Amino acid sequence: MAHHSIDCELCSGAGGEIVHRTEKFRVVLVDDALYPGFCRVIWNDHIKEMTDLPVPDRSTLMAAVCKVEAVVRAVMRPEKINLASLGNMTPHLHWHVIPRYADDAHFPSPVWADAQRQPAPSALEQRQALLGRLRTAISEQF
Amino acid sequence: MAHHSIDCELCSGAGGEIVHRTEKFRVVLVDDALYPGFCRVIWNDHIKEMTDLPVPDRSTLMAAVCKVEAVVRAVMRPEKINLASLGNMTPHLHWHVIPRYADDAHFPSPVWADAQRQPAPSALEQRQALLGRLRTAISEQF
Repeated sequence: MAHHSIDCELCSGAGGEIVHRTEKFRVVLVDDALYPGFCRVIWNDHIKEMTDLPVPDRSTLMAAVCKVEAVVRAVMRPEKINLASLGNMTPHLHWHVIPRYADDAHFPSPVWADAQRQPAPSALEQRQALLGRLRTAISEQF
Repeated sequence: MAHHSIDCELCSGAGGEIVHRTEKFRVVLVDDALYPGFCRVIWNDHIKEMTDLPVPDRSTLMAAVCKVEAVVRAVMRPEKINLASLGNMTPHLHWHVIPRYADDAHFPSPVWADAQRQPAPSALEQRQALLGRLRTAISEQF
């Protein structure tokens, strides 16, 4: 049986543009002007922590996160991948998969720290131009 | 064969107080005055990304991260667990396992954002007092 919370934005909304959806989780593309290619893997049920999931579901979710990481690396060619499950504001299990570049707004700080610079529009446009390939590659990967 | 990088602080140093060590990874307690109970799970070899690991090693590492999460939840009783693998400055695979509380320095923001408040010394002391139990519980869990 699915568990949902009436006040949770990841229960009431998709959390981004859905590129792949299974019974248990969905992969969304985040609309973040500074971070083209930022994806989230969101567990469909309203579960708070990784260790609230049965062990097989943890493996299912992390395998999905790793699939998304692999595709983001292949298509977006970032300097580094950042993975995080935080959920302090939205305690509904979701993983951020963020492609990072030496010239991005916060590098080498986390994206939640103060910005270090204004990224060059041309660099952001180049990354935006890859999103069509990223959508296709994610849906093909699953 | 182990892979090491001469300039990497997680190759040359432990990265914290070691509470458990296996051939493949180690669990360390981070000395952070604002975040008692902050742990890291560090892959011993100099590997950059999760998807640079063979699939069985990814499972080994995430199972360890989840074990640490479970123990930190049981002993430290946080409001939320934050998990993250960033590595922009130190591209050597390591997971942050951070117990978060509604009255901590940054809640509900990530710990890398601007501080929201000065935590009460009594709250930090209470959490510091649990570290002995945390060390024991982690080493018993593996």
